[in-house]
Amino acid sequence: MADRPLEELDWKTPLEAAHRPSLNQIAKTGISGILDPLSPGMPPGSDTATLALLGYDALKIYSGRGALEALGSGVRILPGDVAFRCNYATVDKNLVVLDRRAGRIVNEDAVKLANSLQRVNFGKSSRAKFLFKSTIQHRAVLVLRGPRLSTAVSDSDPEKIGEKALEMKPLDNSNESKLTAKIANKLAREFRRALKDHPINKERKKRGLPAANIILFRGAGTLPSVCPLQRIYDIKAACVAAAPLVKGVCKTVGMRSIDVKGATGTPQTNYMAKAKAVVEALKSYDFVLLHVKAADVVSHDGKAKQKVEVIEKIDAMLGHLLNRVDLGSTYLAVTADHTTSTLTGNHEGDPVPIAITGPYVRRDRIEEFDERSCAMGGLGRLRGSNLMPILMNLLGKTKKFGA
Amino acid sequence: MADRPLEELDWKTPLEAAHRPSLNQIAKTGISGILDPLSPGMPPGSDTATLALLGYDALKIYSGRGALEALGSGVRILPGDVAFRCNYATVDKNLVVLDRRAGRIVNEDAVKLANSLQRVNFGKSSRAKFLFKSTIQHRAVLVLRGPRLSTAVSDSDPEKIGEKALEMKPLDNSNESKLTAKIANKLAREFRRALKDHPINKERKKRGLPAANIILFRGAGTLPSVCPLQRIYDIKAACVAAAPLVKGVCKTVGMRSIDVKGATGTPQTNYMAKAKAVVEALKSYDFVLLHVKAADVVSHDGKAKQKVEVIEKIDAMLGHLLNRVDLGSTYLAVTADHTTSTLTGNHEGDPVPIAITGPYVRRDRIEEFDERSCAMGGLGRLRGSNLMPILMNLLGKTKKFGA
Repeated sequence: MADRPLEELDWKTPLEAAHRPSLNQIAKTGISGILDPLSPGMPPGSDTATLALLGYDALKIYSGRGALEALGSGVRILPGDVAFRCNYATVDKNLVVLDRRAGRIVNEDAVKLANSLQRVNFGKSSRAKFLFKSTIQHRAVLVLRGPRLSTAVSDSDPEKIGEKALEMKPLDNSNESKLTAKIANKLAREFRRALKDHPINKERKKRGLPAANIILFRGAGTLPSVCPLQRIYDIKAACVAAAPLVKGVCKTVGMRSIDVKGATGTPQTNYMAKAKAVVEALKSYDFVLLHVKAADVVSHDGKAKQKVEVIEKIDAMLGHLLNRVDLGSTYLAVTADHTTSTLTGNHEGDPVPIAITGPYVRRDRIEEFDERSCAMGGLGRLRGSNLMPILMNLLGKTKKFGA
Repeated sequence: MADRPLEELDWKTPLEAAHRPSLNQIAKTGISGILDPLSPGMPPGSDTATLALLGYDALKIYSGRGALEALGSGVRILPGDVAFRCNYATVDKNLVVLDRRAGRIVNEDAVKLANSLQRVNFGKSSRAKFLFKSTIQHRAVLVLRGPRLSTAVSDSDPEKIGEKALEMKPLDNSNESKLTAKIANKLAREFRRALKDHPINKERKKRGLPAANIILFRGAGTLPSVCPLQRIYDIKAACVAAAPLVKGVCKTVGMRSIDVKGATGTPQTNYMAKAKAVVEALKSYDFVLLHVKAADVVSHDGKAKQKVEVIEKIDAMLGHLLNRVDLGSTYLAVTADHTTSTLTGNHEGDPVPIAITGPYVRRDRIEEFDERSCAMGGLGRLRGSNLMPILMNLLGKTKKFGA
């Protein structure tokens, strides 16, 4: 949601340009500030930023995206498993990438292909097993399970059109990483063989669509080792999120992920259904995280005006919450997990605005919720990992350190 | 440049008292804040503050001033060398210090004496070599090179008039520090012998000037081990600075030091020549640090009105930059490396003002550049080491942490 000033919006940020009565009401009745998700100037990923906002030292515990995304996609992943983020892609005879997303293959085709891939004969010599699951469009996850695996393996995805798919290589000298690279390369070859003349690909060709004839692997990761929120604060915690990566982070820290019909992680998501799910969840959970991916999606696509519209939808969603939640006994905090520049299309290292409303906050004079107004607020400039202890303290869930 | 309010200036700081249209323009068109160079309340040295402003954790990596100053003075110093900062001084027969600067001996005399000192017979038993170089006036550097040396050696400089020059002592129990102290004391004795009846000193006596009859040693240091800026951010970086210590820090982190005629590190420095050199350097470097020592010099001397004048000259220098640099594609940040109190004559632990202007900063409402105005700015209160990541992020030179 956070951004830099854009010429296209008369040097306002999308937040500043949006009609946002509910966001402003939160700022007006609460206390505001800015947060550096990880550290000033350091662009965070969605995973590290969410870990930080949930109170963890992401710089210390982060162990790659693959496992988090797998967990968020409903794949059962265990500590020690090594997970890769995968793409269905299109390559030519020489493995040169023609389309990294196989024409943004539809879910239906992707799921059918995944069923075939899960059955490839992989050999049993390594005592490893694998699980391949299609998630959204061209995205999929691969989980390797077995003794003696490592995340120190390079990607096969060159992340550029016109370059060749790569052989995965061990990134250190351990037997574990050598074995993992060997298994991953073997699987990649078997996947290509299974995709080559697959009926789905033949049909796609007929329809003039690019064949999904390769699976590209990247971001080998494992679950970070964390103490769950419930144990730290003695709370029941849930999340309402659609983006697999954010869901994965929430599950990793022990939160219950609540699925909502129509929540898609896209600008067309059902904002109101998410708000309703939160109102419902608050009846049985102490802490509920509501995450909307849409603002990030349109930023990456460089669409300033659409970003303003997404923010206005988020504002309406918050309006529902403000009306349905008892703010005499509930605290409501609103922030962004990172700044995404609509100009550069990248996550940037600028701080994000934060506002907290609820019965006993030290209400300040800020009346508008945006990057610049909040910078003048009573919370000052904090780190992302400071937010959770502040909220939990307001709920009376923190322990005194000292006597 | 930063200071505390002074009664002499009607309780304004020198910055607040100065006519400073260019500094104010940077604040007005940019985003402002305050920085604690190292940590709130902790007075930094020029070396540690500059290391911090360049993004390094000075509290962890600092390894003494001697080596940095030596490097900045054009002495070829290698990792592992132990360097001392030296003063030409005047002592009586009992080694009691009469003048710590030998009457601020002129460069010409100092260089001639240094030539003789470099030739003293030092003995070869220790397998160590030394290099002695005169820098500015009474200042000089001594570099020891050899196996098994240590920086854990006390000073011979008592830093007070009326006290005796000291025997240097090992500061721990290692053989390395014992050997280094022994070598340093031996050299100090040989230097005294060579200076005693030196023709230059005889001539100084005739002219009524104090003899430079001792070399005082302090600040044994070695080069800190750092990853160079170029490797961290993939940038070409240069500095325009005259003070040897600041030049040394810049060279240590891999910056090219650009020499400018007339740049002296004194209030009489050629400010405009430095600005012109920066405009030129920006054609081939991604990042240029422009450092002016003068404000610190007059603060140490307790001269408030001269400090105001120096700041006005710095302002004019910045005016040249503002006119010649394309601020549609260049970011310009202005700050101080530390607060120097004109009243106490010391570096103090107060924060320093910072303002950054350039195309995509979140411009705030601050219109004046000074300690108190900037404290209300949109950057809030940062640490010195946060500045470089923020600037490099604006240039698109930082890497995302996470996915």
